[in-house]
Amino acid sequence: MTELVERAFEGDRRALARLLSLVESGGPLARQALVELFPHTGQAHIVGMTGAPGVGKSSLVSVLAKVYRQRGRKVGIIAVDPTSPFTGGAILGDRIRMQDLSGDPGVFIRSMATRGSLGGLAWATRDAIKVLDAAGYQLILVETVGAGQSEVDIAAAADTTVVVTVPGLGDDVQAIKAGILEIADVFAVNKADLPGADQVTAALRMMLNLGASRPHQVWHHRTRMDMPALGASRDEPGWTPSICKTVALRGDGVAELADAIEHHREYLAETGLRQVRERARIRADFLDLLRHELLDRLLERVASEQVESLIDRVMARELDPYTAAGMVLGEDVKREM
Amino acid sequence: MTELVERAFEGDRRALARLLSLVESGGPLARQALVELFPHTGQAHIVGMTGAPGVGKSSLVSVLAKVYRQRGRKVGIIAVDPTSPFTGGAILGDRIRMQDLSGDPGVFIRSMATRGSLGGLAWATRDAIKVLDAAGYQLILVETVGAGQSEVDIAAAADTTVVVTVPGLGDDVQAIKAGILEIADVFAVNKADLPGADQVTAALRMMLNLGASRPHQVWHHRTRMDMPALGASRDEPGWTPSICKTVALRGDGVAELADAIEHHREYLAETGLRQVRERARIRADFLDLLRHELLDRLLERVASEQVESLIDRVMARELDPYTAAGMVLGEDVKREM
Repeated sequence: MTELVERAFEGDRRALARLLSLVESGGPLARQALVELFPHTGQAHIVGMTGAPGVGKSSLVSVLAKVYRQRGRKVGIIAVDPTSPFTGGAILGDRIRMQDLSGDPGVFIRSMATRGSLGGLAWATRDAIKVLDAAGYQLILVETVGAGQSEVDIAAAADTTVVVTVPGLGDDVQAIKAGILEIADVFAVNKADLPGADQVTAALRMMLNLGASRPHQVWHHRTRMDMPALGASRDEPGWTPSICKTVALRGDGVAELADAIEHHREYLAETGLRQVRERARIRADFLDLLRHELLDRLLERVASEQVESLIDRVMARELDPYTAAGMVLGEDVKREM
Repeated sequence: MTELVERAFEGDRRALARLLSLVESGGPLARQALVELFPHTGQAHIVGMTGAPGVGKSSLVSVLAKVYRQRGRKVGIIAVDPTSPFTGGAILGDRIRMQDLSGDPGVFIRSMATRGSLGGLAWATRDAIKVLDAAGYQLILVETVGAGQSEVDIAAAADTTVVVTVPGLGDDVQAIKAGILEIADVFAVNKADLPGADQVTAALRMMLNLGASRPHQVWHHRTRMDMPALGASRDEPGWTPSICKTVALRGDGVAELADAIEHHREYLAETGLRQVRERARIRADFLDLLRHELLDRLLERVASEQVESLIDRVMARELDPYTAAGMVLGEDVKREM
């Protein structure tokens, strides 16, 4: 076990791939590996790239990776987007375009192929980030499909969130207004050679000026302890997202995008917000871990037939789920005494 | 409390709105309300409508609601999509178009305005569905932004999932291939008066034929008990999704879409899959509830300074989160003895 982690850290790519698979699959060995590598985490700059399908996130990720390689940084790529060429989606041409990246020992690409539910994918992504971080990848690009829940989760997992858009997406400005504005640290207007790029940029700028200070994220919380730190994590006075025009396929504007990302990284470091965000992240992970651990421990003690029979009674509306939960928990307490 | 539930059930719309707000905000009163209304749930047909921003989901939802009203069904609408006119996104014209719906006492519209994290939005949506179900809304349309995690979650919460697409979305067919195919029970090709509608339809049909039996959903699970029932929930031999061409703004094809949804509802009932899906849903909810309940109970016993100081030590990499969790749990066990 320790050997696998060691070999992954020494640059053995196969060991790293196996370590990632191990960690993603969960279980006690995954746990042990994460315990071993955890002290080495916290070094990487984690950049989330989000946006609708078709805006060219993957192309941007691969060109950005090349720019960072030229600057001497090791780059990890995690594709959570099911339409990404990294994950096997998109057209063959895209996938071929990615291949020159995969020949570079300073780049490691990981596709999150499983489509998870119940936050499973979010877990797997966060753990994969930890592995690449500990293995010495200094920049970690996480590509995810935009809009909705997933991008909020990515924003929570990333130091810097880049929202990618394109001209002519129709309602995109409205879409941005509704939700994306809150999570973007940097905007990339990709395919900026298409007509309408200036309008998108102007509209974004206008909204950013209107917003002056960005609206606070309203975190929906069920557990009293989730609230304060997370609420603070996106509360950033003084940062106005930059807007970069890019043409990923030609590489135009991508160095400037890298500069904007670096600028945000410095901002986070100087203001101490990097720590605030990291603490919120560690805290949310920790509480999540406790929840799962508690349930696992409970289910080890309670007979599974008992749980299933309670579910049957809830299904038949003889019981409500809250009372049923109370019964499992009460039962559990009784057994411990 | 009971009075609020009663009044909501008697058709008092204001009481219903207050009940929904109460339930979404969580806490003991919300819990009590959910306990009271739970026996009345399980009647509604829950239809998830998902797709990229700009495909016209909201228009389709409102026309579909009208069709169902003509068929004498009470309709609840839950908009989770931040770009939906129901939630305040999109352009004024859309919102005006929705207004004739809101005058109908047989329609109730609920916007999930809070943007949650940590599954908060998923919770709130599931609870809002329960409220409308118990209050006698026979069809519940849940509008959500497509692609990524959120649509998988909606598919898990819905009886029937409608994936909405439009001609000319570029990579959309690939996007569908990668992820959406697995969750769609019915396809709507909206804006079918635009060029390319036949190509999209043909491409979908081809992929459905190729797929013959749809690929099984790979559920990423961390807790051993999450797996079996959920795995079964989307395992449906014998159902081939219908493809409906619609022009929502003119109402074209929407009655046929309603027929396709009804057809799927009958299929679920006849094959017993409705129960399979419902049980998987109740089971996942129940385990989720246990997780949160367990953490709440733990945090009542453990001093919050202790938790915060452990988080500080994790942050400083003196401790890994797993060992820290073990310390809280060990501590907890000691206190109980």
